Amino acid sequence: MTRRDPSDERSGETATLLVTCPDRTGLVAALAQTLYGHGANILDADQHTDPVAGQFFQRIRFETAGLHTDRLTLERAIAEVAERLSMRWRLTYAGATKRVAIFVSRYDHCLVDLLLRHRAGEIECEIAWVASNHDTLQPLVEQFGVAFHHILVTAQTKAEAEAAQLALIERSRIDLVVLARYMQILSPGFLEQCAADVINIHHSFLPAFVGGKPYRRAYERGVKLIGATAHYATADLDEGPIIEQDVMRCSHRDHVADLMRKGRDLEKLVLARAVRWHLQDRVLICGNKTVVFD
Amino acid sequence: MTRRDPSDERSGETATLLVTCPDRTGLVAALAQTLYGHGANILDADQHTDPVAGQFFQRIRFETAGLHTDRLTLERAIAEVAERLSMRWRLTYAGATKRVAIFVSRYDHCLVDLLLRHRAGEIECEIAWVASNHDTLQPLVEQFGVAFHHILVTAQTKAEAEAAQLALIERSRIDLVVLARYMQILSPGFLEQCAADVINIHHSFLPAFVGGKPYRRAYERGVKLIGATAHYATADLDEGPIIEQDVMRCSHRDHVADLMRKGRDLEKLVLARAVRWHLQDRVLICGNKTVVFD
Amino acid sequence: MTRRDPSDERSGETATLLVTCPDRTGLVAALAQTLYGHGANILDADQHTDPVAGQFFQRIRFETAGLHTDRLTLERAIAEVAERLSMRWRLTYAGATKRVAIFVSRYDHCLVDLLLRHRAGEIECEIAWVASNHDTLQPLVEQFGVAFHHILVTAQTKAEAEAAQLALIERSRIDLVVLARYMQILSPGFLEQCAADVINIHHSFLPAFVGGKPYRRAYERGVKLIGATAHYATADLDEGPIIEQDVMRCSHRDHVADLMRKGRDLEKLVLARAVRWHLQDRVLICGNKTVVFD
Amino acid sequence: MTRRDPSDERSGETATLLVTCPDRTGLVAALAQTLYGHGANILDADQHTDPVAGQFFQRIRFETAGLHTDRLTLERAIAEVAERLSMRWRLTYAGATKRVAIFVSRYDHCLVDLLLRHRAGEIECEIAWVASNHDTLQPLVEQFGVAFHHILVTAQTKAEAEAAQLALIERSRIDLVVLARYMQILSPGFLEQCAADVINIHHSFLPAFVGGKPYRRAYERGVKLIGATAHYATADLDEGPIIEQDVMRCSHRDHVADLMRKGRDLEKLVLARAVRWHLQDRVLICGNKTVVFD
Repeated sequence: MTRRDPSDERSGETATLLVTCPDRTGLVAALAQTLYGHGANILDADQHTDPVAGQFFQRIRFETAGLHTDRLTLERAIAEVAERLSMRWRLTYAGATKRVAIFVSRYDHCLVDLLLRHRAGEIECEIAWVASNHDTLQPLVEQFGVAFHHILVTAQTKAEAEAAQLALIERSRIDLVVLARYMQILSPGFLEQCAADVINIHHSFLPAFVGGKPYRRAYERGVKLIGATAHYATADLDEGPIIEQDVMRCSHRDHVADLMRKGRDLEKLVLARAVRWHLQDRVLICGNKTVVFD
Repeated sequence: MTRRDPSDERSGETATLLVTCPDRTGLVAALAQTLYGHGANILDADQHTDPVAGQFFQRIRFETAGLHTDRLTLERAIAEVAERLSMRWRLTYAGATKRVAIFVSRYDHCLVDLLLRHRAGEIECEIAWVASNHDTLQPLVEQFGVAFHHILVTAQTKAEAEAAQLALIERSRIDLVVLARYMQILSPGFLEQCAADVINIHHSFLPAFVGGKPYRRAYERGVKLIGATAHYATADLDEGPIIEQDVMRCSHRDHVADLMRKGRDLEKLVLARAVRWHLQDRVLICGNKTVVFD
Repeated sequence: MTRRDPSDERSGETATLLVTCPDRTGLVAALAQTLYGHGANILDADQHTDPVAGQFFQRIRFETAGLHTDRLTLERAIAEVAERLSMRWRLTYAGATKRVAIFVSRYDHCLVDLLLRHRAGEIECEIAWVASNHDTLQPLVEQFGVAFHHILVTAQTKAEAEAAQLALIERSRIDLVVLARYMQILSPGFLEQCAADVINIHHSFLPAFVGGKPYRRAYERGVKLIGATAHYATADLDEGPIIEQDVMRCSHRDHVADLMRKGRDLEKLVLARAVRWHLQDRVLICGNKTVVFD
Repeated sequence: MTRRDPSDERSGETATLLVTCPDRTGLVAALAQTLYGHGANILDADQHTDPVAGQFFQRIRFETAGLHTDRLTLERAIAEVAERLSMRWRLTYAGATKRVAIFVSRYDHCLVDLLLRHRAGEIECEIAWVASNHDTLQPLVEQFGVAFHHILVTAQTKAEAEAAQLALIERSRIDLVVLARYMQILSPGFLEQCAADVINIHHSFLPAFVGGKPYRRAYERGVKLIGATAHYATADLDEGPIIEQDVMRCSHRDHVADLMRKGRDLEKLVLARAVRWHLQDRVLICGNKTVVFD
């Protein structure tokens, strides 16, 4: 049942460079020249200049097979250019699979969807473990051969629970935490201390229906489309940078339960796209917005 | 350049009955029996029961050519059933074209779109006149053979302007006022006194970006879809019953001007659908929501 | 992990009447009067008249709790009306769960999606068994507590295999066969003898890319949207009545493997909708087309 | 009523370079270095490598205000690189507005839509003239201040008519011919001799319903979505490279006239996007497919 995208076949010999810096002339040429000069063949390059922020963003995917030098030499050369041009940068080699943790509560649809996509080779990463404030999904998770941590969260134990979660994240060197309909609010302190990126799925078309019970409120407002939003979690609840959104048509015939059913499909699709793009280093943050090179 | 939908060919001999009442058994049978008993042939019937409001809604379109009786007798029979079952009802004969007024400011795209669709036979109504707080669109409107009223609106003249608008609406027996990107806020008093229905197009996916400058705010929030919403105007600004909504994909590459350009297409499509459905008596109001039998 | 839609809560006390007949006046009144006369309360009624075929279609869902008579008496009354008006009709009581068989080959995504939706209460039926020409999916199916039949199909054994499939379908009184990416072509003889309805998912936007390898051909044609189509299987391959279709955007960046990945999501969504609508008696056949009361 | 996108404000000082060549290493670096070396600041760069064709495509938009040299010197440098790397290239300065001719028959919706978008500044070009095989749209076109040529086309006069069209295209140095629902088939000879690019709008989701009467055939097939396709016209009718496609949902309630009405909106949107992208040099041809840098 494991399938891999044929288009990823060369992935072992490619690398992806992400760059953010103040906009100025010569940025594209400087990076292209540096990579070319070391024998790197550019496969894809996307760039964007945000005119308001005055920031430049670039994603370059290149083949490493033809490098004249070793990786360290290449990285030193990039670092030199970056210093000169005030670039923040990150270089990822295709083999270096990211480590992912999934937080859930009782709803299983986003979790199962991610586990299935991972098994099908659609989402390239290592799913290190799943944590939940309930133990109901433990058998399901273990069936997929993934570790499960039951971390109870109550008003009294919240601080303790978050400390345990943070310890797990640090100890297992997690790169990305996916909140797959995790029904607890993470404290600002957690998000500050968490070294991993955190992606959340919100079950509405943000900024509509910020906060709780969005399907019920969508029903009460009588909207004709429902939506879902995947975003980076920040201390400002439901206000983090949006990665992806989508909507589905609904009508007066749809009760709250129908909106929830339709919404589950949206949540799965939107979260999967956001996670996939993040893992492929396609998402850059610009203030409270994202640049997505899809 | 005038085209008519062939599917509307029989329209001269049909009538549409709209009914709203508390839900109870026997409603469908009572109306069907009454219509059949007078020789009316039911072409379409849509119904909906709102479980929260406990209300029943029905739209019946029937042929009048085979009526055994005159219209008055049929209407008396319907009135009798309606009284017995506490129904609010409205019967419209296909020939009785609704009279429409359009309010605009400077943006012309929704106005031109409505005028063109009217000319193409897509929107069956009589466009009685266009009113604007600017005179820039007068030549364009008159080119379509439609009367134009320039009614200046300032903080000082607002009450006076609204009185003039209301007088025009009453004098020309307007059934529907379309706010086609009219940039003035109508006072609660206006909406209370206005005998016509009022449909507004809001340039966002409500309830996201309620209020002014929604495209700028959508840009600043970094949403990945922009939307438009057609709704009945009520005293609560942007809070009236939603008739139709739609969205279009956008990305980090879209500046505010791009969102406005894409949004113009959305506004035209969404407003035209709402106006068309309203004119075909397909929209019923249920509290602050709509039932749309499309 | 089992959830049921709250909106289906009353389902044990409802029934659904499907009617098809030549169009004439008085049809709606006759049925409404008959049901009302026996104490049935109509919850929903949808109807459609096909002007080309001259056929009338109606779906009536009603509560049976208030019936004055027993079911048999009601059915006799309906049969009498039906005879008089040349109606074909089918009455289904909500408790009478349909029995479903799923045919698959190696691709598991549609199968797993249906099994998960069934477990979540989205698809109300009994999944009697899964049959495959490969044994690879047997452990997965059995994990869901569903019987698995491995029926080998080769050029030599095809007739024999189809006989075995037909025997299984008959013996277990299957109402619906779902071809969930079953890669074998069923013979016209099979479809003729099969008492169950058969729904297939085709991985293109029919009638584009009829036949094999639609994703490869979509790639080669350079389309900007890919689609999926759920349809009733008939002897004319890929030509049966279409129940549901949907599309997803693609671009020059998408290779065949990307189209296949995106397509898997489409196939799952489109097939699930079609199966759900069929199981809720929302789909009527009109020549080679469908009427879907969704 | 003339509006211009603020995002185009700097357009007078930018240029766009389109490049196609066999894929090899160093392409990106060579071009970036050449532009940078002459003082050109790259604003946007999109690239694509087609793995099947082994072709490389790039679109670079850059500011010319800071050029150290004159345009001729820059062009000579690009030509030198291009020769070395077997590149086909085209350089367009933002001021050099393309000249467009529109062919129509009787349907006016795509024509009016293009004229309105042009007036609103959405489509940057000069609309040189409109040609039609009917004279019905002459007053409308002239109202927009655009020249109108009535060129009668019959079986007898077709060769003569095409000669007249070609002469007009050549004499007025047309860059792009838009077939805005032009109901005549252009001969292979015309397309061969025509120096301008030719974009057609087909009223179906190609390759479904290739040929005539697609809405009627869509109705007869019972599809659940209708579509429209903008493509470059080639000698193989309806087989040219697809630039853009979109679809709209339909149902059993939609008669042919409803499909035509919905389709008009699709045709307008899809054609306008294709024309806009073409005029902005965002479309490159790769065999019988397109690369669209949108």
